[in-house]
Amino acid sequence: MNMMPSRTANREVEAPSSLVVEFGRDRPLVTDAGVELSPFCIAYQTYGRLNAERSNAILVCHALTGDQHVANANPLTGKPGWWTSLVGPGKPVDTDRFFVICSNVLGGCMGTTGPASRDPATGRPYALDMPMVTIRDMVNAQAMLMDHLGIATLFCVVGGSMGGMQVLQWAASYPARVFSAMPVATAARHSSQNIAFHEVGRQAVMADPDWCKGRYLDEGRHPGKGLAVARMAAHITYLSEQALQRKFGRKLQERAAPTFSFDADFQIENYLRHQGLSFVDRFDANSYLYVTRACDYFDLAADHGGQLALAFKGSKTRFCVVSFSSDWLYPTSASRAIVHALNAGGAPVSFVDIETDRGHDAFLIDDPEFNATARGFLEGCARMRGLPQE
Amino acid sequence: MNMMPSRTANREVEAPSSLVVEFGRDRPLVTDAGVELSPFCIAYQTYGRLNAERSNAILVCHALTGDQHVANANPLTGKPGWWTSLVGPGKPVDTDRFFVICSNVLGGCMGTTGPASRDPATGRPYALDMPMVTIRDMVNAQAMLMDHLGIATLFCVVGGSMGGMQVLQWAASYPARVFSAMPVATAARHSSQNIAFHEVGRQAVMADPDWCKGRYLDEGRHPGKGLAVARMAAHITYLSEQALQRKFGRKLQERAAPTFSFDADFQIENYLRHQGLSFVDRFDANSYLYVTRACDYFDLAADHGGQLALAFKGSKTRFCVVSFSSDWLYPTSASRAIVHALNAGGAPVSFVDIETDRGHDAFLIDDPEFNATARGFLEGCARMRGLPQE
Repeated sequence: MNMMPSRTANREVEAPSSLVVEFGRDRPLVTDAGVELSPFCIAYQTYGRLNAERSNAILVCHALTGDQHVANANPLTGKPGWWTSLVGPGKPVDTDRFFVICSNVLGGCMGTTGPASRDPATGRPYALDMPMVTIRDMVNAQAMLMDHLGIATLFCVVGGSMGGMQVLQWAASYPARVFSAMPVATAARHSSQNIAFHEVGRQAVMADPDWCKGRYLDEGRHPGKGLAVARMAAHITYLSEQALQRKFGRKLQERAAPTFSFDADFQIENYLRHQGLSFVDRFDANSYLYVTRACDYFDLAADHGGQLALAFKGSKTRFCVVSFSSDWLYPTSASRAIVHALNAGGAPVSFVDIETDRGHDAFLIDDPEFNATARGFLEGCARMRGLPQE
Repeated sequence: MNMMPSRTANREVEAPSSLVVEFGRDRPLVTDAGVELSPFCIAYQTYGRLNAERSNAILVCHALTGDQHVANANPLTGKPGWWTSLVGPGKPVDTDRFFVICSNVLGGCMGTTGPASRDPATGRPYALDMPMVTIRDMVNAQAMLMDHLGIATLFCVVGGSMGGMQVLQWAASYPARVFSAMPVATAARHSSQNIAFHEVGRQAVMADPDWCKGRYLDEGRHPGKGLAVARMAAHITYLSEQALQRKFGRKLQERAAPTFSFDADFQIENYLRHQGLSFVDRFDANSYLYVTRACDYFDLAADHGGQLALAFKGSKTRFCVVSFSSDWLYPTSASRAIVHALNAGGAPVSFVDIETDRGHDAFLIDDPEFNATARGFLEGCARMRGLPQE
């Protein structure tokens, strides 16, 4: 037993600045791996008001390293919410009109149970004793949260990247509970290249001796160097080659000539190092392992005998699939495959591929075409749903 | 002073199984960084026979982690030479006809002076005291080797990837010494994304505590974990998304179902881990830092007032530029930029973009179209050069 003073996990793990619901021993979550997770917590934020008919709820699903702070200042970083371009008063996901919910995913580190949370069996952080979670486990936990909030049917489920995978899983697992769905910059399965990049990130974390086979919190250590390398590698995949060239090119960092050394001569190096360092201050290394693994296991077609169309067969959910032309992480072709499956399954779907050079992260950026797409789609669905017009 | 028993560098560093020329104190190399490197060694292989006119010499330039063993078994790994599809008796670069030379680059770890070599000033390995080297430094060193061999003019300079950069630099620095040139799967400058991936690799190496600020050989340690992560990340860039999908897809590694763990469930994970592990047995970590940095500094246009065409102005060298359609590391557009500059500079050039889904590493693979292109180009140049016909 280790009696070293513990380096504490970030305060949001055990005492989140969010609403929290704890599902007790009577409400276990049986995971895809066949483990009963119990008790467990979900930390979440809400914006706006649920109407009397309970028909105006929108669930926003966050991406890999996102969190529930979609439209409020982040309690750890102090920065604005991560999707304020889309969500807020008067925004396409209008919090004056809709009741918006965003919960931290299972396996996360912002208050929902994850590997940094205390394992009730031992009193120590779970670390790798946390059961593996899948996208479906995340969605099943969210469904329990919706039950808790008394929301039978979501007006819409919206999310980008790993958030988009949750949208697709919601539509497949709970078609009657999803009136409309907007999967953005995502894929119905992780490709070999997607898995490869995630594996590099995990190996970078696990190569850090401060990772301590996952027990770094018990040991009062922090695998920040490995996690920073993982983040740097991942960050390249979030931007297009053209965007990097336009933004940084070969520009030098505050110097007139190269130093002929391993200093960050180039702005792109400085930028990446900064991305790595700022990430490790806010994210748990084991959580990174868990959420990347959840994505890797995601393959919606495989869950339906290899036919993606069967995942959406007879679905009445209205879909709006959005991709970005320069996204090479989850490319337009991956969204097109989703659209084909929805068409084959007979589900109503519109598809917008937004022309941009900004790569995968375009979905997080204030883009007029994306905003107009989301606004138009939600407006049309609101009319069909009989929500009061603006 | 460290008196620990030294973990020796690989035996090829100090006692290469190659020809070696040492340039003494009277023949220093003044590097781009303004340092006099002296003495220094170049280790090289040759194949075939130099003709009486000394007009049939082909210099092959190797890529980032390649070496001089282009067409013979590698003394470290026992594997066949790295370009036996192109170079050998009866092959496009026909060693029955041409005198083929390949030298280990400056900064390498196979016998040419690099960071694992003994610093004559201290008797210890150079480590980071090795002066930074550039692509031009590598080429200047090769030019000294050509002088040593009595070769005034090369019939052809051939190379892919970083080897292609050397080809371009040869043509720019020594136009009169290069009768023909074949830059393959390369670029005239490192893009922001190229630098970004290299920087991730370097940070992975330097994050490894066994790197010891570069002094791992003195300390008897080996930053293998960091170097393996660097190699894994780089390896993804050598293959196309389509090739990965075709070769590995989401296939599981010798198991019927996922383990819901961090084991290498997927074949692609197993493959990448193997790539990382086998690399660290043969390559020096500091050498990896140096050669990646040399690529990052490469920008042939910048050396000519920002105009690439000026690098080739009035060149009489005959060029054959080859790219591969699915290469996203040095994409077809980068080769096209070279071709445009050659056209603008008035140099004779042919350009072949080979349709393949195999990505950057396609240049190392036995490809009928690439072989035919190389054979045809060399045949035409041989006729112009007045070499005896086959």
